[in-house]
Amino acid sequence: MLRDALKEIREAALRAVDPAAAVRRHLQIIEGELHVAGESWSLAALERIWLLSAGKAAAPMAAAAGELLEPYLKAGLVVTKYAHATGATLPARVQVIEAGHPVPDEAGHRGAAAMLELLAESASRDLVLVLLSGGGSALLPLPVPGVTLPELQATTELLLRSGATIAELNAVRKHLSRLKGGQLARAAAPAPLVALILSDVVGDPLDVIASGPTVPDPTTYADAWAVLGRYDLRSEVPATVSAHLRAGLAGERPETPKPGAALFEQVYNQLIGSNRQAALAAVETARRLGYPTLLLTTFMEGEAREVARVAAALAKGLRRHGDPLKPPACLVWGGETTVTVRGAGKGGRNQELALAAAQALAGWEEIAIMALATDGTDGPTDAAGAVIDGSTVRRARELGLKPQAALDQNDAYPLLAATGDLLRLGPTGTNVNDLLVILVGPETPTAKSAERNQNFTIEA
Amino acid sequence: MLRDALKEIREAALRAVDPAAAVRRHLQIIEGELHVAGESWSLAALERIWLLSAGKAAAPMAAAAGELLEPYLKAGLVVTKYAHATGATLPARVQVIEAGHPVPDEAGHRGAAAMLELLAESASRDLVLVLLSGGGSALLPLPVPGVTLPELQATTELLLRSGATIAELNAVRKHLSRLKGGQLARAAAPAPLVALILSDVVGDPLDVIASGPTVPDPTTYADAWAVLGRYDLRSEVPATVSAHLRAGLAGERPETPKPGAALFEQVYNQLIGSNRQAALAAVETARRLGYPTLLLTTFMEGEAREVARVAAALAKGLRRHGDPLKPPACLVWGGETTVTVRGAGKGGRNQELALAAAQALAGWEEIAIMALATDGTDGPTDAAGAVIDGSTVRRARELGLKPQAALDQNDAYPLLAATGDLLRLGPTGTNVNDLLVILVGPETPTAKSAERNQNFTIEA
Repeated sequence: MLRDALKEIREAALRAVDPAAAVRRHLQIIEGELHVAGESWSLAALERIWLLSAGKAAAPMAAAAGELLEPYLKAGLVVTKYAHATGATLPARVQVIEAGHPVPDEAGHRGAAAMLELLAESASRDLVLVLLSGGGSALLPLPVPGVTLPELQATTELLLRSGATIAELNAVRKHLSRLKGGQLARAAAPAPLVALILSDVVGDPLDVIASGPTVPDPTTYADAWAVLGRYDLRSEVPATVSAHLRAGLAGERPETPKPGAALFEQVYNQLIGSNRQAALAAVETARRLGYPTLLLTTFMEGEAREVARVAAALAKGLRRHGDPLKPPACLVWGGETTVTVRGAGKGGRNQELALAAAQALAGWEEIAIMALATDGTDGPTDAAGAVIDGSTVRRARELGLKPQAALDQNDAYPLLAATGDLLRLGPTGTNVNDLLVILVGPETPTAKSAERNQNFTIEA
Repeated sequence: MLRDALKEIREAALRAVDPAAAVRRHLQIIEGELHVAGESWSLAALERIWLLSAGKAAAPMAAAAGELLEPYLKAGLVVTKYAHATGATLPARVQVIEAGHPVPDEAGHRGAAAMLELLAESASRDLVLVLLSGGGSALLPLPVPGVTLPELQATTELLLRSGATIAELNAVRKHLSRLKGGQLARAAAPAPLVALILSDVVGDPLDVIASGPTVPDPTTYADAWAVLGRYDLRSEVPATVSAHLRAGLAGERPETPKPGAALFEQVYNQLIGSNRQAALAAVETARRLGYPTLLLTTFMEGEAREVARVAAALAKGLRRHGDPLKPPACLVWGGETTVTVRGAGKGGRNQELALAAAQALAGWEEIAIMALATDGTDGPTDAAGAVIDGSTVRRARELGLKPQAALDQNDAYPLLAATGDLLRLGPTGTNVNDLLVILVGPETPTAKSAERNQNFTIEA
């Protein structure tokens, strides 16, 4: 019963962030006017519309926009991951380039260059419609002149290995790239630009999603240079990279467009899909199914197995004491956890979270937890995550499996597959990070007594 | 202002779990009858009252009981940690033994033996009043005949190093000890026994607190032996230990008293103070101060720095989106985190949690988080924890300190001392694990804009 409810909750959450539906909701033609991002344009007055779509959901998003705008489109370009354009019905004037992700490749390089070429034609009476989804950054690699793609990648890897934050990494990358950090918007000027953005970054920072090609960049060459200094990488990065940054520092290279720049007066960035929308749909559905529900946060981060212990703690408090809601009840969180890989097993952050939660909740009744990657792909597996309950560990042991050993080896997949707790949905077509749903059933005499005995159970 | 509110919240929480006050609340004489634990005894009909108190709060608890019961007391014994009986006014007939904690010593051994001697005199028309608080297990070490205290300790250490759970550890220890696992209650029989228990264990499992000397033990010699087998320790533990457990397996040693045993018909265990009581007082106070408040859970566990990231995620969701409450608001959790020590620095789990939360919340306005060890002693330091806010990291950097390096070295104490964020309260006299209070102030235009810029901030 808890599992049936979790299925409904999951389906509603994924529907709420369907990329094509999100585009359709935010793009409307009413009496000859195109309404989008709180603005409107007379289609009669617009000379041409250009459609640029990049990211893992680029094809369905462009198809949805194409349904409405095909008669007005001058040209369009979709850059998406290999095999991600299959099945999308796109207007004839929209070109598709499939490219490498997460490792950028030459196809992506060509796609990014093609975007710049297309924008070179745009003029003030045009409208540029940009559709962005997760993966857009890797799919549109376009290093500054003098720096090659492998050199850009080597710099990224050095920073990641040094423990640089995403903000630091972006300050550097935006100053080594030709589209990131508002530069796509600059290329579109003087044409007005509307960007519809599906967020795959926790907290929805628009300057980070797809590296913010349509968003002002407050960081400078000085910041980028300072970051390299902070991690002692100035002489480690390729010479072309340090040469470019030094030239930028000396004012010999153009800066990325800054907040307040005039060009942004004609740029409209609109978030059309996010983890929170999925989470809110989950909340609404859980409530409709009779579970009082709280949305705790959509900023969830941290090591998956430790976040699992907090999730289990919440489930126990709810079950035992009615904190923060009396059972039956539901708690929804969103965000994205990480896994520090220690073993050689098969799994993903949601599967690992689910297994660790199962360990912490062994023997507890009427509690189920769903950990879900909304894109359907949790880690390098074909699973989206898992739904576990208080019997998962017992069922695993009955099959001769060892939950703690599986966790130690980052090997959640085979165990959860064996117990039937794995979620295999196939690619969902969207990507707004992860959802965590804790569902606690009504209080029963059995559950009460099981919990009391729980104190005495020795776990193998 | 947030810090003032946190001070009031903290004081109310600690007042709610004052051990002496808790004993006074649960022990009353009304018209010649002693009311305690839902039962009542005619003082005229009772022949003698025996008072046994063990744990870090044993002295103030016994003093509170003594205020009421001194005229009826036959004898009493307090076993507490060194320097923890200072200042308590105890009835003359109550003997005090100070002993080693957390490492048991000979004084504790003598104290435990003295308890058994005292109980040898108790009879059916007597009442045995037992007061238990955290530390009671280490303070009352009494190995079974043939096993020495160092051998018992060596066994405990082997199990801990092998990754045994607390339930597994207890199954073994209860079968190597003479008071744990309900055996103190058996020694008191046929006298009725009332135990008033201050919980220092997350979730308040009565069989774990002070190793459950008055609570039935569902584990057996077979369980204890299986645990040693599971960790391949059967030939690692001292020979006297394995010999005793084998003899128990063969039925040649008495089992610990089991659930349902007749003797427990006259045993009344009453929880008189817990983390949840402190948390509820915190909630009540925060609400009175104008902050809508939720108690999230009192089962909090996990690696301190990772739990911190979840706490920060909750604060951000509250601040930015009004999840799960609109600001101003407060979230209270309780439990106890752990620290995997990697560096050689100075700190404790609450200080480390606070510093990691400060990192995650750098630049956020109108958010403060208090991480508090309710006993006033967080790790091996004189601090109880810390109160951090969105300016902690900036203030630390202005002093030339490096928050991430401090965290990497488990060295939160000096940094938080320098920023003035450390909480130094001295010993509080109680111990009900930790509290985590997230306080978010009212929405302000400054806070709004600061958060927006937060996306662009590069953290050093």
